[in-house]
Amino acid sequence: MQCCSSPNATVCVVDATSSEDVSALYAPWLERRWHVVTCNKKVNSGNLEYYTRCMDATKNGGGKWFVEATIGAGLPIVSTLRTLVATGDEIESVQGIFSGTMSFLFNTWDGESAFSETVALAKAAGYTEPDPREDLNGLDVARKVVIAARECGVALSLDDVVVQSMVPSELASCSADEFLERYAENDAAMAQAAANASKKGCVLRFVGHVDVKARSASVRLVEFAKAHPFATLSGADNIFEIKTARYGPTGGSTPLIVRGPGAGAAVTAAGVFGDIVGLAKNLSLA
Amino acid sequence: MQCCSSPNATVCVVDATSSEDVSALYAPWLERRWHVVTCNKKVNSGNLEYYTRCMDATKNGGGKWFVEATIGAGLPIVSTLRTLVATGDEIESVQGIFSGTMSFLFNTWDGESAFSETVALAKAAGYTEPDPREDLNGLDVARKVVIAARECGVALSLDDVVVQSMVPSELASCSADEFLERYAENDAAMAQAAANASKKGCVLRFVGHVDVKARSASVRLVEFAKAHPFATLSGADNIFEIKTARYGPTGGSTPLIVRGPGAGAAVTAAGVFGDIVGLAKNLSLA
Repeated sequence: MQCCSSPNATVCVVDATSSEDVSALYAPWLERRWHVVTCNKKVNSGNLEYYTRCMDATKNGGGKWFVEATIGAGLPIVSTLRTLVATGDEIESVQGIFSGTMSFLFNTWDGESAFSETVALAKAAGYTEPDPREDLNGLDVARKVVIAARECGVALSLDDVVVQSMVPSELASCSADEFLERYAENDAAMAQAAANASKKGCVLRFVGHVDVKARSASVRLVEFAKAHPFATLSGADNIFEIKTARYGPTGGSTPLIVRGPGAGAAVTAAGVFGDIVGLAKNLSLA
Repeated sequence: MQCCSSPNATVCVVDATSSEDVSALYAPWLERRWHVVTCNKKVNSGNLEYYTRCMDATKNGGGKWFVEATIGAGLPIVSTLRTLVATGDEIESVQGIFSGTMSFLFNTWDGESAFSETVALAKAAGYTEPDPREDLNGLDVARKVVIAARECGVALSLDDVVVQSMVPSELASCSADEFLERYAENDAAMAQAAANASKKGCVLRFVGHVDVKARSASVRLVEFAKAHPFATLSGADNIFEIKTARYGPTGGSTPLIVRGPGAGAAVTAAGVFGDIVGLAKNLSLA
């Protein structure tokens, strides 16, 4: 970092890692007026005290901090939430399908065949982590829920998110191979949940939810009517539904919805690059 | 304007009119480095030479020109298109339901009852202009199509948009009362179009479309499969589907979709206010 140590240099650090070692440097960077653009979720969903220190730095004349790609990759989620807050709208809730992997699983599974087979299929197609429990345990979604909550002004941490894991507790600590072999034990329970939903004309979706008014958040399996935007999703798309005083039933209207690919190298890079362009505009360099 | 004539003053003019007299002043304002924030569609969808003069002014060190609320009100459409363009994505097409009135009509009409009755119902509920032909003729949608096209770098004018009007030519110039009385003459043709769509498992939607590669644009009635995001719309929602090299079939993924209320005082004011906040950030005032 020696080369950038001139106090007058305009410096923007782009963190495209998922490293905690790198993100532990955000606060000192922001405090010395370096700008930070990141797709690394670790600070925005991590320790609240450290997050607050970074926020304070950026508010108190420090560097600017752009995090669009930490949720929904290049989709305009953080920027939309920030504009709603900045223009005095009251956000009531943010909910959606924040994980491409979980989206693919529930868009693909018919509710009748074995759910574990759909997981195996998704793993074979490269849609899951090498150990699919890293998707199925809901932690990735919970991180994004925390990021969304904080953008809405709700100071939550991961521990505050009520997570309904799709991994049975007895399979949480075995080897990945044993998990894949034994996950079929869970199929009957999943089929029953799907059948219960189907009786009501609904399908199951794995949903992250921030209730801004109640200052609470959850990640869980929810039933949605077949015509609901979450039910008609396809592929590995993400979808975000933002209900506010202006966009939602209490305002006599409907929510604001953004849908599209929310993961992958190209769209994540686009989200990061969009923030760099936004920073350059802020600095009147573009 | 005398009070703002100091050459060093930072001036932002907010045009919340739909007046051509006001918008005729954008170029001189931008040229003297005044910023312009507007929901007035007249310049962005009007005479191409004058639009180009405004764009040149803003590019060549003049004022900044923010137009988010000219299309989709407060929905993040212009900002998303600009970010896609700025980050080097190749936009292939922008299509959608850009008119709350036309959205309401086709989301409400069942395809079997008289279309003219749905129009009468929408007029009674205050969803249409006093003369519903101003919605049905597609001109409002065509203006938004021109705005979207220009944001994508396609220098179109209103005359270039192929518009399929929902007003039969023989009813184009009679009185509004006579139109409402005689519009039922058109019902058989509409019912036939809906029946043709229904046979293919489709519904009709009134869609604006910019084909960026072909540099062409249209406003017309299009058939969509019942599971398509356009077909599952409700109320008076707008929906925008943006296909790009990153977001779309050629990139092996799906389009970017934004949906929600795209008209009305609160969300239009929000779009304008969001631009003012964005300008303030650009000027490091916020």
